Amino acid sequence: MYLVNEERLEKMKKILYTRQDTLRVFMDYVYSPHNLAAIVRTCDAVNVGKLYYRHQKKVKLNNEITMGAHKWIFHEYIDDIEKFYQDIKKEGYQVVVTLLDEDTVDFREVDYTKPTLIVLGNEVDGASETSIKYADKKVIIPMYGMSQSLNVSVANAVILYEAQRQRSLKGMYDKPQLTEEIIQKTLKKWAYK
Amino acid sequence: MYLVNEERLEKMKKILYTRQDTLRVFMDYVYSPHNLAAIVRTCDAVNVGKLYYRHQKKVKLNNEITMGAHKWIFHEYIDDIEKFYQDIKKEGYQVVVTLLDEDTVDFREVDYTKPTLIVLGNEVDGASETSIKYADKKVIIPMYGMSQSLNVSVANAVILYEAQRQRSLKGMYDKPQLTEEIIQKTLKKWAYK
Ligand SMILES: C[S@@+](CC[C@H](N)C(=O)[O-])C[C@H]1O[C@@H](n2cnc3c(N)ncnc32)[C@H](O)[C@@H]1O
Ligand SMILES: C[S@@+](CC[C@H](N)C(=O)[O-])C[C@H]1O[C@@H](n2cnc3c(N)ncnc32)[C@H](O)[C@@H]1O
Repeated sequence: MYLVNEERLEKMKKILYTRQDTLRVFMDYVYSPHNLAAIVRTCDAVNVGKLYYRHQKKVKLNNEITMGAHKWIFHEYIDDIEKFYQDIKKEGYQVVVTLLDEDTVDFREVDYTKPTLIVLGNEVDGASETSIKYADKKVIIPMYGMSQSLNVSVANAVILYEAQRQRSLKGMYDKPQLTEEIIQKTLKKWAYK
Repeated sequence: MYLVNEERLEKMKKILYTRQDTLRVFMDYVYSPHNLAAIVRTCDAVNVGKLYYRHQKKVKLNNEITMGAHKWIFHEYIDDIEKFYQDIKKEGYQVVVTLLDEDTVDFREVDYTKPTLIVLGNEVDGASETSIKYADKKVIIPMYGMSQSLNVSVANAVILYEAQRQRSLKGMYDKPQLTEEIIQKTLKKWAYK
């Protein structure tokens, strides 16, 4: 028996059945708690498959930072970044690094219906050298004003909602991407906590 | 003679010649300084024509909040909200209120190439009754997760970049919307401060 009411259980099921397993985000030393919180919330809203992160201070996502939102997202702290990139590329993911650089393409030119890892950079220094090294695509969000950059949680949202647009057009929110086994396992975990 | 170098002056000109006079934003009691800052920055990046706001505490946008970014955006504090809506509607603007409601359409269904005012709601209470009363369109950004809402600065960015997409497709960033008189007046103001 689940420890939640029927409505809540239905909501959990719907989330897992529409979860975009093949759309993932890596926060490469994003540090502001406010940004971390907003990014987790947007990842939840777009229903990304997994959120990876690393942090200068080995912070873990917790309730204080996300007000609980991280509980519903699969997330993982990355220690060995080289291994992380090698593994995810082996799985067939394209690495899309968001970057404020000449050597970039407009973010809308990327096909986000492919298995995609989106990389977000640090508030001050941007994405790390290692992330740039493993980039398959470097993308920029066009800007027409005085500011040098967007807030990182804003950049994340603009890219993720472009991915959501492409994926919903293709019907990718209509059929499950997670295996039935993972869905059932996760439901148990969620419904008992 | 302008008090800025040639490169800086060129940048200022470019901003004014691409400014989207007919795309405007109203912050209806948005109060968090972090959100105000991110919204100003995104409005600058998309180069919106004007940013209106009101605030429970009569706060004005200042350097402490925006780190200077508001200087490059036309902005106005709204005292009389009824008059504000009546005037802007008389000018031919459609009022697009962002809302978490059943009675909404997907934000991508709106034609943002028309003169448009986008209304953002308060972090806790959402858009005011008055804003809803004057709404021509009520729009929602689809969400597939547990969270009830997006961060307001994130919602603003998702909508503004949809407007940017539609407007750049239509070549609206390629010809000036401000009058030459306003451009020259503004250049003088900017170049001397
Ligand atoms: C505040 S920016 C970093 C600024 C840093 N000074 C630099 O030059 O990279 C933080 C992160 O937000 C994202 N970002 C911000 N604006 C962006 C834009 N216009 N295009 C793509 N990514 C952007 C990138 O992930 C970036 O690393
Ligand atoms: C945190 S939300 C307000 C939540 C408030 N409890 C409510 O129910 O309206 C703050 C503002 O962000 C915007 N917003 C957040 N998520 C949105 C979404 N999914 N669609 C449209 N607007 C959204 C709206 O302007 C909203 O008023």
